[in-house]
Amino acid sequence: MQQSSFDDLRADVARRAEAALEALLSPQAQPGELARPARLIEAMRYAMLGGGKRLRPALVVAAARMFGAEGDGPLAAGLAIECVHGYSLIHDDLPAMDDDDLRRGRPTIHRAFDEATAILAGDALQTLAFETLASDRVHADPAVRVELVVTLARAAGLGGMAGGQMLDLAAEGRFGGAALVDADISRMQAMKTGALIEAAVEMGAIVGGAGSRARQALRRYARALGEAFQVADDLLDAEGAAAVVGKKTGKDAAAGKATLVAVHGVAGARRRLETLTEEATGALSGFGDEAEPLRSAARFVAARDR
Amino acid sequence: MQQSSFDDLRADVARRAEAALEALLSPQAQPGELARPARLIEAMRYAMLGGGKRLRPALVVAAARMFGAEGDGPLAAGLAIECVHGYSLIHDDLPAMDDDDLRRGRPTIHRAFDEATAILAGDALQTLAFETLASDRVHADPAVRVELVVTLARAAGLGGMAGGQMLDLAAEGRFGGAALVDADISRMQAMKTGALIEAAVEMGAIVGGAGSRARQALRRYARALGEAFQVADDLLDAEGAAAVVGKKTGKDAAAGKATLVAVHGVAGARRRLETLTEEATGALSGFGDEAEPLRSAARFVAARDR
Repeated sequence: MQQSSFDDLRADVARRAEAALEALLSPQAQPGELARPARLIEAMRYAMLGGGKRLRPALVVAAARMFGAEGDGPLAAGLAIECVHGYSLIHDDLPAMDDDDLRRGRPTIHRAFDEATAILAGDALQTLAFETLASDRVHADPAVRVELVVTLARAAGLGGMAGGQMLDLAAEGRFGGAALVDADISRMQAMKTGALIEAAVEMGAIVGGAGSRARQALRRYARALGEAFQVADDLLDAEGAAAVVGKKTGKDAAAGKATLVAVHGVAGARRRLETLTEEATGALSGFGDEAEPLRSAARFVAARDR
Repeated sequence: MQQSSFDDLRADVARRAEAALEALLSPQAQPGELARPARLIEAMRYAMLGGGKRLRPALVVAAARMFGAEGDGPLAAGLAIECVHGYSLIHDDLPAMDDDDLRRGRPTIHRAFDEATAILAGDALQTLAFETLASDRVHADPAVRVELVVTLARAAGLGGMAGGQMLDLAAEGRFGGAALVDADISRMQAMKTGALIEAAVEMGAIVGGAGSRARQALRRYARALGEAFQVADDLLDAEGAAAVVGKKTGKDAAAGKATLVAVHGVAGARRRLETLTEEATGALSGFGDEAEPLRSAARFVAARDR
């Protein structure tokens, strides 16, 4: 099925992801497991089920489909990245980190459960991500699976998402140190948010079996998309209504956090978002209709209101 | 080199592991990484370098060597499990978890740095474990590497180590619920500590290319070894001097924690430890001299004083 609108594809992926996550996060112990402690699996289910745009799984599926890969393999790879995304939200919300009480309009995990459960739920979600990605549901060829594991790990680890969160905390000045300049902000955001968005597209290309030229074009696309996502996020924080966004807004300014909006103002950030959207779609100029969902994804990311 | 004493092999592995971890935790950003934030990598190095018995890497190397696998592959697999072990110690020590100030005679990570850094250092160590395990330094065959990833993930996740820590917190009564009985304590300990010890032996068998009968025997060995390790740990907590053990002792009793020592007394726990050591060595009866290090490992675990 060829879908030209990314949002249609995303809605379809979201439905399939929900069912697949329901199975992955079964309260029943799986073969080789002694038990799944009730409170832990409950917290993991609370975090992962019943919501979320499933943007990252949709990007994996959309990129894989460009190369003819359909079926549940790309979706399973997408679930792995969604578990990493979910773990990072749980840990970022902790009192010692961003100290957030609200996420998608509901109490955060450490508020709905407790801090220890939140830490362990995040830890176990990261583990589950790599277990899922290494399983033969993702792809028959183990060489493809190890490449996916390495790609996700690089995007999530100290040189990617976790490192970006560390730089973000440092940007608040909590460890001392000088204010961030433009280049530092871009790098921090590229690591914290961009790396996982980029990895989603890259993993789609890997699981779809893309050639090296196609992968390079997709990498250019993904880099622009990842930055566009972060700029849109900063604009949402600066302009969005908490009721619509589903979490506290205006936090960045209150925390004196270095964002592109703080440095260049709302109008400057809007211009940057337009440039990035054009860069993203421009990187796909060598592809035909099969790239329409990803072109649409760039517009989706720029226009999202939550 | 055939080594009959596990402690000689362990000391040798510890030296090689130190050098390999030094490289793995380089402050320099690696290819594909935008940066390695200084404070984060410093915390990870503080946690992982300059100490530790390296019991788990030594078990991987000892088991792999039984099947003729030498070189750096088994060591690299051992480092992955050591990173998971290290991440679990950092997170278990957090104020919201066991709230420990001292580990191996030094301030714990959240005391030496801060809580946010400790959470992120643990997170990034888990990621690094899977990145390392999926790399071709471990084994040339990707099928072996994905099997290792799945084995480690199952041992570390919600049905293993993380789940066991959750049950351990529940055993303190912090979420309400009834006291643990004997079978619950054994299961909790099998998950919290045993699973990773078992995985070390299993991963050695996988990376060494053991056949299915050898793997079954090693699995029996590893199960007894894992439980012996936990009983020895409980005895250390009940009897050891903090100065020697390098962390606070007597904590379990103070916390009213359900352990085999609490239920059966010191003498009962000592008898159980002897039985388990015999079970472990008995499982190796079909092997010759090549299993001497693992036999020695069972005695090492039973006799350790820290």
